[in-house]
Amino acid sequence: MDCSVIPLSHPGPHPLSLISTTDFFYPSVDDPFTQGQIGACNVLSDMYALGVHEVHNVLMILGASRDMDPKSRDIVTRKMIEGFTDLCGRAGVDVTGGQTVMNPWPIIGGTAMSVCAPSDFIMPTGAVPGDVLILTKPLGTQIAVNVNEWRQQEDKTNWNKAQGVITLEEAFEAYDKCCESMTRLNKNAAKLMHKYHAHGATDVTGFGILGHSNNLAQNQKNKVQFNIHTLPIIKKMVEIDKVFKRWRLEEGFSAETSGGLLVILPAQDAQNFCRELEELDGKPCWIVGDVIEAKQNNMAKIMENKRILEI
Amino acid sequence: MDCSVIPLSHPGPHPLSLISTTDFFYPSVDDPFTQGQIGACNVLSDMYALGVHEVHNVLMILGASRDMDPKSRDIVTRKMIEGFTDLCGRAGVDVTGGQTVMNPWPIIGGTAMSVCAPSDFIMPTGAVPGDVLILTKPLGTQIAVNVNEWRQQEDKTNWNKAQGVITLEEAFEAYDKCCESMTRLNKNAAKLMHKYHAHGATDVTGFGILGHSNNLAQNQKNKVQFNIHTLPIIKKMVEIDKVFKRWRLEEGFSAETSGGLLVILPAQDAQNFCRELEELDGKPCWIVGDVIEAKQNNMAKIMENKRILEI
Repeated sequence: MDCSVIPLSHPGPHPLSLISTTDFFYPSVDDPFTQGQIGACNVLSDMYALGVHEVHNVLMILGASRDMDPKSRDIVTRKMIEGFTDLCGRAGVDVTGGQTVMNPWPIIGGTAMSVCAPSDFIMPTGAVPGDVLILTKPLGTQIAVNVNEWRQQEDKTNWNKAQGVITLEEAFEAYDKCCESMTRLNKNAAKLMHKYHAHGATDVTGFGILGHSNNLAQNQKNKVQFNIHTLPIIKKMVEIDKVFKRWRLEEGFSAETSGGLLVILPAQDAQNFCRELEELDGKPCWIVGDVIEAKQNNMAKIMENKRILEI
Repeated sequence: MDCSVIPLSHPGPHPLSLISTTDFFYPSVDDPFTQGQIGACNVLSDMYALGVHEVHNVLMILGASRDMDPKSRDIVTRKMIEGFTDLCGRAGVDVTGGQTVMNPWPIIGGTAMSVCAPSDFIMPTGAVPGDVLILTKPLGTQIAVNVNEWRQQEDKTNWNKAQGVITLEEAFEAYDKCCESMTRLNKNAAKLMHKYHAHGATDVTGFGILGHSNNLAQNQKNKVQFNIHTLPIIKKMVEIDKVFKRWRLEEGFSAETSGGLLVILPAQDAQNFCRELEELDGKPCWIVGDVIEAKQNNMAKIMENKRILEI
């Protein structure tokens, strides 16, 4: 479960729940404005995974880096705040408070919360055999971020090794794609979950697609297994992983930052969901798996004959 | 304002608001369990300052210290979590989630939230001339924490200097008092704010009693001035501040951690509020100031002939 869901008992005929989540981490991209956007996108993503597309409040969690000179620190911190606020604005929610500390490392993140009626959210527990799985963003963001770091390091060992399979131009292209992906809100996907009868969702972050799929499978009320047959991956990231053998991307373990939603949908709704989301976001999404009846425990697996889509 | 207050628009005749706050910091006491309690007490205190005594959800914000050896880190982190959870339990709220990172310094705190009807909270804006100010915990916590650190430092310069005015026994006593105070919930005070017609409150933390009083005065709708005539202070802390000249405690600037509520009440309710709170908490509270009509801008001041109460 990506969020806390607390049923409220208030007078009146309308039951309400308080839904909330908190998430923060350390910067991973060069540009502090983009980093602020990623921090906001990432914390909102947990709400969207429940189909909650109206977030009522966001509080910011911020660490200003003690190890920067004061002038750089002021600029970087201000830009991170601007990026965070910008993306929350695009999501239709104000940042109304928060807490800032001085810390050796910079920190960015927040808490998002929403008060919802039963029809406002979709518990991630309703998968049935015959459903399919849709992924709304490509995998490989962490690897693209790493390649971008290597490029700028004084010690060129990793960058030289990477250049065996990737050109400078391709590294820039992968980095651009991952930044676009990490700053894209899953809000439209959350809205369409309602329209197309989704049976639940999760967002793909620190545990990789297999880790999050497994959690999602184990959450289900029915006996179901998730068979993942397709992995959409940012171009060249598979080759990088093959050279460095560090992330186990093709096995589904590579961590993502502010990743896509993995949505469970009835098969007959899947094409329309994808078509409409692509119209709204201007970016592709993919049917990546099937829901079948579980023979034993609920689980997810990546099929041996899986297809890699280079994005 | 200590919290965000977001009016919600849900169907039905009962207006509701989402009230939330986030707060986190670095440990300041020896015992990690106590530190966890202080972290929880501190974040809940912002809710209590609004008279919100039923908190619906808490998410924990935690940093495990990278600089500790793994075994100590595990113990310290677990104890901090236990202390945090323990105090939230005593406040009647579950900790339902959160986020943990590895950080050079340990971090403890959280986000608290509540969904409230108009009668559940008291906006801190209603002071009128004739009201008085009540403080529910003594001042001087940060100084007592510092003295306790000096005692344990290898470099005895500060501790030797302190011993000019404080004995070892008195230092322990001050430290015990400040830990008791920092881990005491302001929940009963929040409840009594409703019973005794409070016109608003704030909690006294990082800006000291004068900083927070000033903020509170400036929040008021009427033209009011807060005259603080009494400063209840942990025993010996005034002498320490006189020797070290570092905190400006008597001028109202010394920061507090998880401090008391400063409550605005009609004068005729003040004695009963204090008596009932002392019965419930087993600890004294004090009438520390008067609300008078402001001649110019709303502000708070500490009277020249103020009284220091050693606690």
